[in-house]
Amino acid sequence: MSEIKRIGIITSGGDAPGMNAAIRAVTRSAVTEGLEVYAFYRGFAGILDKEFRKFSFSDVGGIMERGGTILRTARVPEFKLPEIRSKAAQNLKELGIDVLVIIGGEGSLTGGKLLSEEHGIPVIGIPGSIDNDISFTDMCIGVDTCLNTCVEAMQKLKDTASSHERAFVVEVMGRGSGYIALASGIAVGAEAVIIPENPVDFKAIAERIWEERQRGKINSIIVVAEGAASAYTVSRHLENRIGFETRITILGHVQRGGAPSAFDRLLAARMGHEAVKAILEKDFGVMTSLSRSNMARVPIEKVLSEKKELDMDLLKLSKILS
Amino acid sequence: MSEIKRIGIITSGGDAPGMNAAIRAVTRSAVTEGLEVYAFYRGFAGILDKEFRKFSFSDVGGIMERGGTILRTARVPEFKLPEIRSKAAQNLKELGIDVLVIIGGEGSLTGGKLLSEEHGIPVIGIPGSIDNDISFTDMCIGVDTCLNTCVEAMQKLKDTASSHERAFVVEVMGRGSGYIALASGIAVGAEAVIIPENPVDFKAIAERIWEERQRGKINSIIVVAEGAASAYTVSRHLENRIGFETRITILGHVQRGGAPSAFDRLLAARMGHEAVKAILEKDFGVMTSLSRSNMARVPIEKVLSEKKELDMDLLKLSKILS
Amino acid sequence: MSEIKRIGIITSGGDAPGMNAAIRAVTRSAVTEGLEVYAFYRGFAGILDKEFRKFSFSDVGGIMERGGTILRTARVPEFKLPEIRSKAAQNLKELGIDVLVIIGGEGSLTGGKLLSEEHGIPVIGIPGSIDNDISFTDMCIGVDTCLNTCVEAMQKLKDTASSHERAFVVEVMGRGSGYIALASGIAVGAEAVIIPENPVDFKAIAERIWEERQRGKINSIIVVAEGAASAYTVSRHLENRIGFETRITILGHVQRGGAPSAFDRLLAARMGHEAVKAILEKDFGVMTSLSRSNMARVPIEKVLSEKKELDMDLLKLSKILS
Amino acid sequence: MSEIKRIGIITSGGDAPGMNAAIRAVTRSAVTEGLEVYAFYRGFAGILDKEFRKFSFSDVGGIMERGGTILRTARVPEFKLPEIRSKAAQNLKELGIDVLVIIGGEGSLTGGKLLSEEHGIPVIGIPGSIDNDISFTDMCIGVDTCLNTCVEAMQKLKDTASSHERAFVVEVMGRGSGYIALASGIAVGAEAVIIPENPVDFKAIAERIWEERQRGKINSIIVVAEGAASAYTVSRHLENRIGFETRITILGHVQRGGAPSAFDRLLAARMGHEAVKAILEKDFGVMTSLSRSNMARVPIEKVLSEKKELDMDLLKLSKILS
Repeated sequence: MSEIKRIGIITSGGDAPGMNAAIRAVTRSAVTEGLEVYAFYRGFAGILDKEFRKFSFSDVGGIMERGGTILRTARVPEFKLPEIRSKAAQNLKELGIDVLVIIGGEGSLTGGKLLSEEHGIPVIGIPGSIDNDISFTDMCIGVDTCLNTCVEAMQKLKDTASSHERAFVVEVMGRGSGYIALASGIAVGAEAVIIPENPVDFKAIAERIWEERQRGKINSIIVVAEGAASAYTVSRHLENRIGFETRITILGHVQRGGAPSAFDRLLAARMGHEAVKAILEKDFGVMTSLSRSNMARVPIEKVLSEKKELDMDLLKLSKILS
Repeated sequence: MSEIKRIGIITSGGDAPGMNAAIRAVTRSAVTEGLEVYAFYRGFAGILDKEFRKFSFSDVGGIMERGGTILRTARVPEFKLPEIRSKAAQNLKELGIDVLVIIGGEGSLTGGKLLSEEHGIPVIGIPGSIDNDISFTDMCIGVDTCLNTCVEAMQKLKDTASSHERAFVVEVMGRGSGYIALASGIAVGAEAVIIPENPVDFKAIAERIWEERQRGKINSIIVVAEGAASAYTVSRHLENRIGFETRITILGHVQRGGAPSAFDRLLAARMGHEAVKAILEKDFGVMTSLSRSNMARVPIEKVLSEKKELDMDLLKLSKILS
Repeated sequence: MSEIKRIGIITSGGDAPGMNAAIRAVTRSAVTEGLEVYAFYRGFAGILDKEFRKFSFSDVGGIMERGGTILRTARVPEFKLPEIRSKAAQNLKELGIDVLVIIGGEGSLTGGKLLSEEHGIPVIGIPGSIDNDISFTDMCIGVDTCLNTCVEAMQKLKDTASSHERAFVVEVMGRGSGYIALASGIAVGAEAVIIPENPVDFKAIAERIWEERQRGKINSIIVVAEGAASAYTVSRHLENRIGFETRITILGHVQRGGAPSAFDRLLAARMGHEAVKAILEKDFGVMTSLSRSNMARVPIEKVLSEKKELDMDLLKLSKILS
Repeated sequence: MSEIKRIGIITSGGDAPGMNAAIRAVTRSAVTEGLEVYAFYRGFAGILDKEFRKFSFSDVGGIMERGGTILRTARVPEFKLPEIRSKAAQNLKELGIDVLVIIGGEGSLTGGKLLSEEHGIPVIGIPGSIDNDISFTDMCIGVDTCLNTCVEAMQKLKDTASSHERAFVVEVMGRGSGYIALASGIAVGAEAVIIPENPVDFKAIAERIWEERQRGKINSIIVVAEGAASAYTVSRHLENRIGFETRITILGHVQRGGAPSAFDRLLAARMGHEAVKAILEKDFGVMTSLSRSNMARVPIEKVLSEKKELDMDLLKLSKILS
C-alpha cells in the first residue's frame, strides 16, 4: 500500500460523551502529521450519502467539552446488506479515503470489520459506548461520564428518599449489559440492582426492603437495567409485595449527554492520538484500548470474538455494602 | 400572652431542597435568642405521635448543604378531621410549645391556619415547595434548586438530541402548576411546553417540530408538567403525528433532592431568621415572604385566599425564543 | 423619530454568565418583530472599530448554555473622552443603528447614558454583572450563577476542612461590593466574612475561630471580598494570631464562567425580551429590571443616581448562623 | 498467628475524596465477616492518643457521598522516630488490634511498613491520594474526583477567557507529581502545562501564546503544578514577555473536597472489600491495587521501592492537541 494521505472519520451507533474529544484528538493529531481528515456525518449513513466535511485543526476547537457528537450518529440497519457495504466502500475509494476511523460500539466495529474484509478498506476502531460492553479494553469512552450522571441523579433521590417512607425505582441504560446499573448501584448503596445477567427475585428484594425498614433504613433505591425490566414492571411487582408506594425515575437519554468527565476527555484524547499513531504505522484492523493506564491496540476481530463478561463479584459487593 | 419560651418546628408536605437550611436558621436564631426548639418528625404526624427532639445550636450543624429534610415529612390526610387537629393542639399545649413554625406548602399552611383558628396555637409559616405555587412571595424555598436540576438534565438531553434525529419528551413535577415546566423549558429553549394552565394542542406541536426540522433544527425537546399529561401520553400522541421516534425522560423525585443552590440556602437562612424575629415580636399567623429582595411577612390567611397565577407572558416567551 | 428598523447590541464591562442568553433573547425577539440586529464585538470598542455582524435567528442558537459572551467584552477607558464617544455615535449613525442595547454594569450604562445625552442615541440597558451592585433591580444577570460557583467551591473546602485542623481563606470577586462574599459566606456557614462595607477586625475573627475550636468546630472558612483585602493579607494576619496554618483559595475568573443557572437563563430571557418591547414602544433610556418577579423598566439616570446599598442585616445574619 | 478478630483502620496523610467510601466498605465487609472494627482518628495520631471508636454497620451509613474523611487525617512527622512507632505498636497490641488497615499515600504506607517490620503489626494498605503518585496500581482513590474538580474550574475559565484578551494561570496540587496538572491540562486543551518533571521554558510558552493569538485563539490557559512553581511566579514571568495581563486562580484545597465521583466510589468500595478479603486470607503487608479493571494485591515493599513515573507521552499529547 502506498502512503496514507487522507483519513475518514465517523461516529456510529449510540452516542457517548467524549466522542467529540476523540474526534478532536484524531483530527488534530492527523493534521499535525500532514494528513487530511474527512469527517462523515451520521455514521455509515454519511458515507453512503457522501455527506462529509474536510476538517482543519480549528474546526474541532471548542468541541471537547460538549456531550453528544458533532458528527451526529445513526443506526444504519441496512448496513447488514452486502450491497450497501459495497456502495459505502466504493464511495470511500472514490473520495480517496485511505483509512477509516470508526468511533463507536460493537455494531459499528462489526461494520468496519466487514468493510475491511470484503473490500480491503483499512479501518481503525475507537471504543465509544456508555454500555461498557466492549472487551479487551479497561474502559470505553463515555462510561465514566454516564456513571457520574446516574450517580448524581440517584444521590438526589437518596436525599428525598430519606425524607419520606417510600421506595424509589430507577431505570438506567445499558442495553444487554448490567454494568451501568451495577456500578451506579454500588456507588450509591442501592438496596437492589436488577440486571440482565442475573435472574430477578422480586420476593427476595421485597424482603430485603422490609428488613431494612425494620433496621431503620428508610431510603430504599432499586436500580434496574433497561435490559432486565422496565421501571414500571419492577414498581408494580414491588408495590404488591411491600405494601407501600414506590416512585419511578427514568433517566433516559440524559445519560448520554453532559460535558464529558475528565476521565473520558483524557481517554478520548489518548485514544484519538493512538489511532493516528496506528495509521502512521499502517497497523490496521485494530481497536485502541486502555490497558493498565497505557494505550494498547487489539485486533478488532479479537475484540468481536469475545463477549465482555460482567464481573459478578460486583453483584456480591452490591449486596454486602448496602 | 406571656413570654415565648419554647417553639416547635416541622417540615410538612412535599420536601424541597433548602428545608434543612431553614431548620438550621430557625434553630440557631431561636437558640441565640434564648428560646428552646422542639423539632417534630414527619410533619403533623410527629406532633400527633409526640415524636420530637430538642435541638441545640450544634444539632443543626452540617445540614444546610443536604437536600431533603432531616425532620422528614409526610402528608397527613387525616389532619382534615377536626378531632385530629384537636389532638395535635392538645399535644402541643402539653409540651408547652408556645408557637409552631411550619415549613411547607399550601396544604401545610392550611393545617397551621386551622390549628391557630380552632385552638389558638400561634403559627408562623415558611414557604417551602418546589412547585412555586404559593402567592405573596417572590419565591418559595426549593424552586431554584429544582429548576437547576431540571435544566441540567434537559441540557444533557440537548447534547444527545443534537446527535440523533429524535424528539425527546421530559416529564417534570409541579402538581397543579406549570411553573417548573415553563421556566425550565424557556431556560433550555424547549420546542414546546405542555402545562395544566393551557390546553394542549398536539397538532400544533407536531407541526412546529416538523417546521423546525425543515429549518434544520434537530434537537427537539418537549417539556410536560405532570399536572397536564404524562410523558407517555405525549409521546404516543406525537409519534403518531410526526412519524419518527420519541424518547422519554421522567425525572421524578430527583427534582426534590440535591444540595440546595446558593439562592435557596440564602433564602432559607433569611426566612428562618425572619420567622424568629416575628416570634419575638409576637407577630403570629404570618408567612415569611421574599419581596423585592427583602424579607417581609404576609398573613397566612391572605396567602391562602389567593391562588398564585402563572405569568402567561412566560408561555408566549417560550414560543418566541425557541 | 421615525420607525425603528435596526438595533445594535453590545456586551460591555466584566462578563457575566447569562449574557449569551440575553443576546439570544434580544436577537430572537427583535428578529421576530421584523427588526435587524447588528451585534458589535468587544463592547464599545467594536462600535469604534465598526467590528460587527448582522445576527439572524439561528446565529444565536446553542449559545444560551454557554458562559462568557460570544460578543466578547472589553473595558474601554478612553470612552471617558467626549471625542471618542462622538466617534462612536457617528459610527452608529452611519450604520443606521436606531437604538443600542447595552448588556453590562454601571460603567457600561454610564457610557450609554452619555451617548444618549450628548448625541441623541437611544439606548436600552440590561443589567449584567456578577457584582450585584446595580440599583433598582432585584437581581442582575450573572449573580446567581456566580454565587453557585462560589458556594460549590466553598462546600468542597468544608469537606476537607473537616478532615484537618486548619483554617481556609477564600478570596472572591465583587469589586467595591461585598455581596458575593456575604451571600456565599451565609450559604456555607463561613466563620467570618470580610467585606469592603465593614471595617475588618482581625482580632475578633481570630478570637471567634479560637472559641469555635474550643466548642469542637473544626472547619473554619473565612471569605474575603477582593474589594476588602487579599487572601494573602488575611492569611498572614490570622496565622499570627491563631497559631495554626491557614490555606488559601483564589477562585479568580472561574467565578465569571460556567453554564448559567436556570435563574440567570430565565432572567436573561425575560430581560432580553423586555428590552425589545421597550424598543417597540420607543421607551428609551431605560434599564430592564426584575421587580417582585415581574419585568419592569427604570430610567438609566435613576439607576445611576443611587448606589445599591448592601443589606447589612445579612452581615448580622452571617454571624448568628455560623 | 491465631484468628483475626479485631481490625483497626485509619486515614492518613492528605485527605482524598472517596476515603469515606473506603472506610464504609472496609467496615461493612469486616462486620459482615464477623470482625470488629476500631476506627482511629487523625491517622497515626489517633493510635498514639488512643482516640478511636468501634464502628458498626450503621455507623458508616450516609458517608459514601461525602468528601474528606470522617476519621480526619493528620500528618504526624514524629512518626519518623522509632520510639514513637514503638508506642503506636504497643497501643495497638494493648487494644487487641490484629491488623491495621491504612488508607493513604506513600508516607502513610511507609509508616505501616515500619510498624510491620519493627513490631510485627500486620498491615493492609489502600492507596488514597489525589496526587496519583503511588506505583503498581492503575489509579489511587481520589484522583478521578480531583481531576473533575480541576477540569470543571478550568472549563469555566475558558468561558470567560474567550470573552477577554487575557491569559489565565491556574495552580493545581500534586506535590512532587505533575499528573493532575498534565491530565487536567489535556482535558481542557490548556496552552501550556508546567510540571516538576520537565524544566519550564517561559520563553517558549510566551511564544506559543503569541502565535496562537495570531492564529485567532483567544482563550489561553496555563496550568502549573504546585511542585513546579507558584501561579504568581508564572504570572510575573509571562506578563513580562507577552505584554498583556494575566489572571490567577489558585484552587487550593477545593481539589480535595467534593462528593466523590462514581469512579472513586466504586474503586473505594472494591478496594475496601478487597482489603478485608486479604485479611481473611492472612495475606498481610499488601496494598490493594486496580489492575486492568480487576482487584489485585501488591506487597507494600514493592510499591514503595519504585517511584511512579509520569507518562511523558502525555506531555507531548498536551502540546499536540491544544
